[in-house]
Amino acid sequence: MRDVAVVGVGMNKWGELWGTSLRDIFVEAALKAMDDAGVDRIDSLYVGCMSPGLFVGQEHLASLLADYLGQCPIPAVRVESACASGGMALRMGWMDVALGLHDIVMVSGIEKMLDVDGAGATYALATAADQEFECYNGATFPGLYAMIANAYQKKHRIAAERFRDQLAHVAVKNHANGHLNPNAQYRAKLTLDDVKNATMVADPLRLYDCSPITDGAAAAILCPLDLAKKKFKNHPLVAVIGTGAATDTIALHDREDLTWLRSTEVAARQAYRMANVEPTQVDFAEVHDCFTIAEICVTEALGFFAAGKGGEAAMAGDTALKGKKPVNTSGGLKSKGHPVGATGIAQILELVLQLRGEAGERQASKARIGLAQNMGGSGGSAVVHILKAL
Amino acid sequence: MRDVAVVGVGMNKWGELWGTSLRDIFVEAALKAMDDAGVDRIDSLYVGCMSPGLFVGQEHLASLLADYLGQCPIPAVRVESACASGGMALRMGWMDVALGLHDIVMVSGIEKMLDVDGAGATYALATAADQEFECYNGATFPGLYAMIANAYQKKHRIAAERFRDQLAHVAVKNHANGHLNPNAQYRAKLTLDDVKNATMVADPLRLYDCSPITDGAAAAILCPLDLAKKKFKNHPLVAVIGTGAATDTIALHDREDLTWLRSTEVAARQAYRMANVEPTQVDFAEVHDCFTIAEICVTEALGFFAAGKGGEAAMAGDTALKGKKPVNTSGGLKSKGHPVGATGIAQILELVLQLRGEAGERQASKARIGLAQNMGGSGGSAVVHILKAL
Repeated sequence: MRDVAVVGVGMNKWGELWGTSLRDIFVEAALKAMDDAGVDRIDSLYVGCMSPGLFVGQEHLASLLADYLGQCPIPAVRVESACASGGMALRMGWMDVALGLHDIVMVSGIEKMLDVDGAGATYALATAADQEFECYNGATFPGLYAMIANAYQKKHRIAAERFRDQLAHVAVKNHANGHLNPNAQYRAKLTLDDVKNATMVADPLRLYDCSPITDGAAAAILCPLDLAKKKFKNHPLVAVIGTGAATDTIALHDREDLTWLRSTEVAARQAYRMANVEPTQVDFAEVHDCFTIAEICVTEALGFFAAGKGGEAAMAGDTALKGKKPVNTSGGLKSKGHPVGATGIAQILELVLQLRGEAGERQASKARIGLAQNMGGSGGSAVVHILKAL
Repeated sequence: MRDVAVVGVGMNKWGELWGTSLRDIFVEAALKAMDDAGVDRIDSLYVGCMSPGLFVGQEHLASLLADYLGQCPIPAVRVESACASGGMALRMGWMDVALGLHDIVMVSGIEKMLDVDGAGATYALATAADQEFECYNGATFPGLYAMIANAYQKKHRIAAERFRDQLAHVAVKNHANGHLNPNAQYRAKLTLDDVKNATMVADPLRLYDCSPITDGAAAAILCPLDLAKKKFKNHPLVAVIGTGAATDTIALHDREDLTWLRSTEVAARQAYRMANVEPTQVDFAEVHDCFTIAEICVTEALGFFAAGKGGEAAMAGDTALKGKKPVNTSGGLKSKGHPVGATGIAQILELVLQLRGEAGERQASKARIGLAQNMGGSGGSAVVHILKAL
């Protein structure tokens, strides 16, 4: 098995990109990653995307994007695991390089979500839940995560007002980080009061507890570590030292414990074992904060904090940029935006910038080992990667 | 790199399965493959599916199916490359086993196409073409393949009537084979006159030149060859000895030569090289006959026949079950049906049955090396696998 390095990363400025098509957004991000690595061709392409069929009426996406990037006849394939599609694309590309099939492999993610109206986007996103048992009965993701939030508050016996504060601290912290990220969709700083008084979406989740609808893409270039040492000297070396992936019941109601993200726990355990790293050794992380409650549950399933203590840690500032374990230095899904298929790759971009010491104003003080956790649906799938600065 | 064996295969009876849901169709095929191998668990799952979002409103498919197969928390991911999704799922599963990530890996394909009406199915399928430049201008796949057919007839200066005969021979041959396949959707034998007098769809392609709309699934179990030799002794051994994948411009109009399937040529070259096999050494093949003209062009791109001679070979009976190079002994997409994501895996099932000598009435007389070619759109992607009886 060959060791794998990340030698280039790129993304476009995320947002509501009415004037730019799916293929142009991709090409912009892909060319930035190729420029960053200093390559003018790739050997194979993996594209993470959740639902180009429902969002823009285009399947067969990897071939289209290989074509528009001028890279035919390279092998190209799309990878889907709902909102974990980007992380899964990285995992497939890592397999490709580790196996020795190809040397210069692009892993990428994209979603163009604004070309349908709000109801269309809600429908498309809901297809990541169980259509026959959850969606049919009217559940959409804000509702499902609100159920997780209510179960969490009840299980851990947290007073309603304190719990509301915990959730708000996650949103405020991620917007504070996103304020420093020029590629983030919503760079506005928020106050605790902004979050606590925002429009109710699904009790207790309010507007600023939810990640937005976003158009965006991100890409990364992988190659064997040996080759990276010889040829890619533009940047400090970054290696992928652990990968893990797992599933859980797709329907939330089938789980023993709504508040425990088993797929994240299992995927993380695999990644920690491969990387030979303990949770305490992880310096910083990008995690899947599709809703504020998600970040709290994820930081527990990753072993950063004990069950029921993730919200307290956020309130104490432990996960802030200057805290003990910075989480979502990029702004996370909350502030940076959440073009679902692209999110997992943009997490990798943030890890790489931090590990290189190139994260500018949002540089974490200690960044030698970083972790990315990407999740599909209400946790029906999860993928975890650990990257290290060499 | 570990050598990889196929130790189990299964599919359901394909057709218009109004009474069975997507998840139930999958579980039926998956359990048959597990029974065939003699395993009660799998380590990871790859699902080829083109558009569950547009066909049944369900993305996040691999997690759903891992759940319904009772296999959580194994890693599971969906792979999409339009009608080549099944072949691409096999390729990802092969990478997984070859790398040593997992030992017992299920590769599968599925599509539930009948739950939308005819216009809905035509729209969903057309998303495998270039939405902005082909579909927007009214092109759908029968039209695109009709353009290939007309270009082929003109380029190779074939008289219209003789060309019509060549196409008809492909349909008649595949239905003769499908008549012997109990899992095929349309087992009726056809005559040349049936095909030549059928309803016109897109000149020169008539009804029986086109593959149908189908509900169906197929699955296969992969494992390392060493493990297969020790533990899987129910059936003769079958190994995957070559894999290749490639892309071409997604839009037909961007190609230099409409009649030459470059992605198939490039993918086949990779697979031949890895397998150390010449086209003449391939005993039989399953190829992507979404339309009769496709089978003709594919057999040329694979190097079985010279350019312009594929139709003549079909007329001469070379590709018939008793011919020199049997093609689509299963009945092909034409007769067996074409649930798009499942097709590439069902091709592998047919190869395995033939290589084991378990294909019953449709057993080819010589079956030591078999090739499967699976194609997306009008050839925007292609994946080729070579399997061998050991």
